[in-house]
Amino acid sequence: MEDELYKMIEGGVAAPLGFLAAGVACGIKASGKKDLALIVSKKKAKAAAVFTTNKMAAAPVEMSRMNIADGLASAAVINSGNANACTGEAGRRDAKMMAEVAAEALKVEAKDVIVASTGIIGVPLPTNKIFEGIREGAGELKKGGNAASAEAIMTTDTYQKEMAISLPFGGREVRIGGMAKGSGMIAPNMATMLAFITTDIDICRTCLKEALTEVVETSFNMITVDGECSTNDMVLAMANGLANNDKLISSDPDYPVFLEALRYVAQTLAKLVVKDGEGITKFIEIEVAHARSDDEAKLAAMAVANSLLVKTAFFGEDANWGRILSAVGHSGAALNKERVDVKLMDTVIVSAGKGSGFDEDKVSEDLKQDEIKLFIDLNLGEGRAVVWTCDLSYDYIKINADYRT
Amino acid sequence: MEDELYKMIEGGVAAPLGFLAAGVACGIKASGKKDLALIVSKKKAKAAAVFTTNKMAAAPVEMSRMNIADGLASAAVINSGNANACTGEAGRRDAKMMAEVAAEALKVEAKDVIVASTGIIGVPLPTNKIFEGIREGAGELKKGGNAASAEAIMTTDTYQKEMAISLPFGGREVRIGGMAKGSGMIAPNMATMLAFITTDIDICRTCLKEALTEVVETSFNMITVDGECSTNDMVLAMANGLANNDKLISSDPDYPVFLEALRYVAQTLAKLVVKDGEGITKFIEIEVAHARSDDEAKLAAMAVANSLLVKTAFFGEDANWGRILSAVGHSGAALNKERVDVKLMDTVIVSAGKGSGFDEDKVSEDLKQDEIKLFIDLNLGEGRAVVWTCDLSYDYIKINADYRT
Repeated sequence: MEDELYKMIEGGVAAPLGFLAAGVACGIKASGKKDLALIVSKKKAKAAAVFTTNKMAAAPVEMSRMNIADGLASAAVINSGNANACTGEAGRRDAKMMAEVAAEALKVEAKDVIVASTGIIGVPLPTNKIFEGIREGAGELKKGGNAASAEAIMTTDTYQKEMAISLPFGGREVRIGGMAKGSGMIAPNMATMLAFITTDIDICRTCLKEALTEVVETSFNMITVDGECSTNDMVLAMANGLANNDKLISSDPDYPVFLEALRYVAQTLAKLVVKDGEGITKFIEIEVAHARSDDEAKLAAMAVANSLLVKTAFFGEDANWGRILSAVGHSGAALNKERVDVKLMDTVIVSAGKGSGFDEDKVSEDLKQDEIKLFIDLNLGEGRAVVWTCDLSYDYIKINADYRT
Repeated sequence: MEDELYKMIEGGVAAPLGFLAAGVACGIKASGKKDLALIVSKKKAKAAAVFTTNKMAAAPVEMSRMNIADGLASAAVINSGNANACTGEAGRRDAKMMAEVAAEALKVEAKDVIVASTGIIGVPLPTNKIFEGIREGAGELKKGGNAASAEAIMTTDTYQKEMAISLPFGGREVRIGGMAKGSGMIAPNMATMLAFITTDIDICRTCLKEALTEVVETSFNMITVDGECSTNDMVLAMANGLANNDKLISSDPDYPVFLEALRYVAQTLAKLVVKDGEGITKFIEIEVAHARSDDEAKLAAMAVANSLLVKTAFFGEDANWGRILSAVGHSGAALNKERVDVKLMDTVIVSAGKGSGFDEDKVSEDLKQDEIKLFIDLNLGEGRAVVWTCDLSYDYIKINADYRT
């Protein structure tokens, strides 16, 4: 269905009308790789963001939270290689100066600049390099700058994550673009997830906030590599209205059309983040159905997704239904243990809380695939959640423990 | 201090007056190793237990919960090799029959028999073997039977975990013995933690329940290997009164003396469980001080203890304070990020939420030790918690994923 509704287009975050992007190497990364990205809208955009709930939130998160409070933004400046986290008063000053330097270079107001950082924590930002990088990037802003910007936000990501779609909307064509980075964790880096979504739809700012919040809940908040939530996580959406549709409000019958398109972009980016998880050998979709509530369904699905025993069993290609049931039982979600059914791919492995006596050979064969689907039916209420995760392999340990060797 | 107060004695669970134990091989384990344990008190004992909170609780847990409701028990029968979990109605019948057969062999009432199981889940109990084993074990009950019983409850444990102490109490000598098994998880086994504590103190049954609940909260509930809580977890305490002290009630000035002795036994067994964690290379004590409450201190300490990033960093012998702060920030505990201090062994590594610029060489040297102490001060309130955990190594993955090879 999505393939019919949405046209995949080139251009990433710079695909929507009026958005430009750039990515440069300003010298934060010793490797000389790109480490500074800019996204700018020719017209001041409606903007909304969802930030980390981590109480150790980094300075750029604190500042961007203030800058976005009015629901407007013109640009985003993002650096990789240094998270500007646990940097105290100096970190706050540096984040503010990043916004000011970007504002000057882009000829926008500093309060309309969103700042994001990812990388080493506890180390002061190399501000001079960053300021030079911002000025250089400002001179390189262009429609085709999306690939460079998607590259510039990477840390231990092994590939760029970006996409864009267009869809007919209210007699016009509307575009949504996005880029993300995943949970690269080479010490002393942290697991930071950043995503930037741009669109040229004309939408009221409270509707954009509402839509982003709902969509993040079923995309970026439904992925987990290792259960961590970093000091720097951020999802930003900017909508500049240049598609020239009648301004969308949430009571509009067409609102769900935009909402689902936004969800499609967010879920696609979120899945790309999991698929680039450290040491991943399998991408796993876990659906919990008929929980007492959606929240409890999420609790159960996340408990299974974050269970080390389940993750290692998938790495070992073992249909260990006991570990799955135990994780669900331990999740806090209400359940009747004699009503739980579990399906792995298309095989029922647990029926009414007991092993179904399934064909082990068939299931072992299924488990060799790269993408695994697990369906857990609590048969209790109407709650449902889908979570995406990955297995836990030797390489996760290697990446996160042996980086010194 | 403990060494002065308590005398370490031989005899494990059979050390207290009136307790006997046995452990036999009845054929549940294909290896032929011991797999059935009995503990019996010559005199019906006051008894209390703490059970798993996992909603997929196994049949023996359900039944024992009922049998202990009156605060009395005469015996415990424990099998390893099969958890009798996710076994439905047949499982309940089998657990009940285990109690009945034990009652008959031991000449006690079935309602005074506590049943525990650990091992494979989803497979019917081999009841005939177990019944024979119970009868054989009943014939072998003796004072020196503790080692065999501690061996018979092991699954993937690499060593037996038992201890006993004696202490002067109210002009008499009181003994406390105990045994435990840890979180062995070779599939399709589950992470089950079982502990059995015996004492000859005379104590009122509500006081025993109160004491056990408090002590479990600061011992078995403060350990974590991988954050899992199994379908079969159980901690049982039995007190038969044969020490002949004046019956202890909780308003007695001597009550704290017993409470601390019980805590000492429980904490010692709990630490032994962690030290036998799968693939462990380091035992880690995490203390969180000055949280807003004890509960929040535990939240923070557990978040650090269960963080894959922290666990792998310890395996890599890296003082990755950023991961520690991020885990605390993500825990849900209230904090002021610019007040957090962290000490690793005797080195302050974080001061006021920022890296202290510590001597990396000194700390790297400290991290080579087998036992690590981490102290996190939130500088906020009066809450405190101590948690014991281990690192996450290649061998954890190997044990839990590659068991088929």
